[in-house]
Amino acid sequence: VSLPAWLAIDAGGTSTRSIVIRADGTCIGYGRAGGGNPISRGLPVAMSALVDSSTAALADAALSGASICGILVAMAGGDANLQDRSIAEALEVLGVDAPVRVESDALAAFESGASARSGYVLICGTGAAALRVDGGTVTATADGLGWLLGDAGSAFWIGRRVARAAVEELDHRGTSTALTRLVIQSLGIDQHPTDRSTDGQRPTSVSDMLVAVYTAPPVNLAGLAALAFEVPGDSVADEIIAEAAEALATTLNAVMAPHATGRVIATGGVLTGQVRLRDGVVQGMARRGLAIDLHAVPDGLAGSAMLALQAGGIVVDGAVRKRVRETLEAIRERTPYPTGSHK
Amino acid sequence: VSLPAWLAIDAGGTSTRSIVIRADGTCIGYGRAGGGNPISRGLPVAMSALVDSSTAALADAALSGASICGILVAMAGGDANLQDRSIAEALEVLGVDAPVRVESDALAAFESGASARSGYVLICGTGAAALRVDGGTVTATADGLGWLLGDAGSAFWIGRRVARAAVEELDHRGTSTALTRLVIQSLGIDQHPTDRSTDGQRPTSVSDMLVAVYTAPPVNLAGLAALAFEVPGDSVADEIIAEAAEALATTLNAVMAPHATGRVIATGGVLTGQVRLRDGVVQGMARRGLAIDLHAVPDGLAGSAMLALQAGGIVVDGAVRKRVRETLEAIRERTPYPTGSHK
Repeated sequence: VSLPAWLAIDAGGTSTRSIVIRADGTCIGYGRAGGGNPISRGLPVAMSALVDSSTAALADAALSGASICGILVAMAGGDANLQDRSIAEALEVLGVDAPVRVESDALAAFESGASARSGYVLICGTGAAALRVDGGTVTATADGLGWLLGDAGSAFWIGRRVARAAVEELDHRGTSTALTRLVIQSLGIDQHPTDRSTDGQRPTSVSDMLVAVYTAPPVNLAGLAALAFEVPGDSVADEIIAEAAEALATTLNAVMAPHATGRVIATGGVLTGQVRLRDGVVQGMARRGLAIDLHAVPDGLAGSAMLALQAGGIVVDGAVRKRVRETLEAIRERTPYPTGSHK
Repeated sequence: VSLPAWLAIDAGGTSTRSIVIRADGTCIGYGRAGGGNPISRGLPVAMSALVDSSTAALADAALSGASICGILVAMAGGDANLQDRSIAEALEVLGVDAPVRVESDALAAFESGASARSGYVLICGTGAAALRVDGGTVTATADGLGWLLGDAGSAFWIGRRVARAAVEELDHRGTSTALTRLVIQSLGIDQHPTDRSTDGQRPTSVSDMLVAVYTAPPVNLAGLAALAFEVPGDSVADEIIAEAAEALATTLNAVMAPHATGRVIATGGVLTGQVRLRDGVVQGMARRGLAIDLHAVPDGLAGSAMLALQAGGIVVDGAVRKRVRETLEAIRERTPYPTGSHK
């Protein structure tokens, strides 16, 4: 008879991570796959990522799906129960005969980093959102409306501005910026010496860029966000970063309670990776008269494990939390993947 | 032996129209299909629309493809020759053994409405762009960079703002606006009486709206643009329209020559359908010290016929232009479709 184990999945825009944990919080298997967000990737691609990372984690733990007592999926929009049934159906191939619960990726990130049961989460990866958590329950949410309707300040939002700055300079309508060369390199297009011709036709590099952007999934623009941080002092890039930080501060401010207390957990690839963006958010909140303690956590994987155990009726105390964090760190360190990153 | 005939296709974001014309400008066949813009629809869907509308036009003219001396396709981005080879290949099923030429849809619109060989075109349909035409040749282009990177003030741009205004009000973060009810109706989602619950979960109507928006092609947001014009006096809607007009004026201003002369041809479904938007553009140009004569034409179909004949070596004089316009109007009037509209 095998000991009970749970499966926790943290499905992000860029990568999906799965772990298998014991009731005492020991992490015994880890797996990883591509982006698992149904909104940005499309449902079939996202569900394949969930299945692939979980299959790898089960294999790593040398367990079959039949040994799993419950699955918890942490996912952007997970609090809205948008796709619960589709997710449960997609995970049937794992052979798990146990309940599937879907939670907000931001709540999982909060659990990953929080030392108290109340506080705030600011998430800025491919998407962007802020949440207030009171006693382990989400009591307010702002943004997280996806790349078409919201996600202000997110990697997609920044990446789209970066691409626009480049195409506008190439189209002779924008300010000169070091971003242009970086975007051209990043998209793998050629710069043409004849681009300054004035025959009324589009410069070839503009056409090439339109083809590169429009033949790829829109979410790929999020991959250009990092370029904004590579050219400090460039006025166009600096303005994009400042506006992103201000947008994130506005989103965070929308969920702050009067006389707000509690740590703000910062998560998502851009916010954890870019100290300038975190500093900008802290400054934006200071301008609003709020001094915040912004604490970066790489992702919600540890928290999703804690939520999985809680959903299974396990009391997740300080000792369990500590064991989840430590054994997860150990199991990640022996993997060939970079740790602490959404890339 | 049949008389020579040409095929002209005007491929727009919302619909594609094809006509068959004789050398003297007489329009002898007309056909219509769905959106034919490869960027917004994807290449396969767009090419099907070109083939379907052309098949209908050839059938209407009782001609086979073998009788056609040349094909001209007017399309957004057509001046950049983005997809020429793909278009020629897709049209092979028509059985036409003659050259295929791709031109800017804005140049076709200019030819549809211009009385001189020089002037300007401002296009605002699903996309948005401005062009300067000198002696029948495009000498400057602004915007037209597609929905992800540009098209400021376009139907997509307006529709996305309309959707955002609605979701932000439903998410308790935006200004109250009459647009919200219209968007809910338009997307076919229910309003829920419990939406004002404060348990921290998303209101159900927000989740429903995210599902409706993200399970449809992004370009469908352009269909919400008309709602902005249905609630005059609504401050949120009025601001969206004012910002769209200002964005279009900026785009038009970018192609204006010093001491600009010549008529500005306004085309595209939103600009031809909404006098308030046209007035806003005229006012925006007046603020820049430029008095413009904005002349609306429903589409570039007449102009694409003129370009098709020109490409075939026919001298397109005033008599030919007049015959194209008159016979096209007659053939459209006998069709079951609404005329003079991109819908």
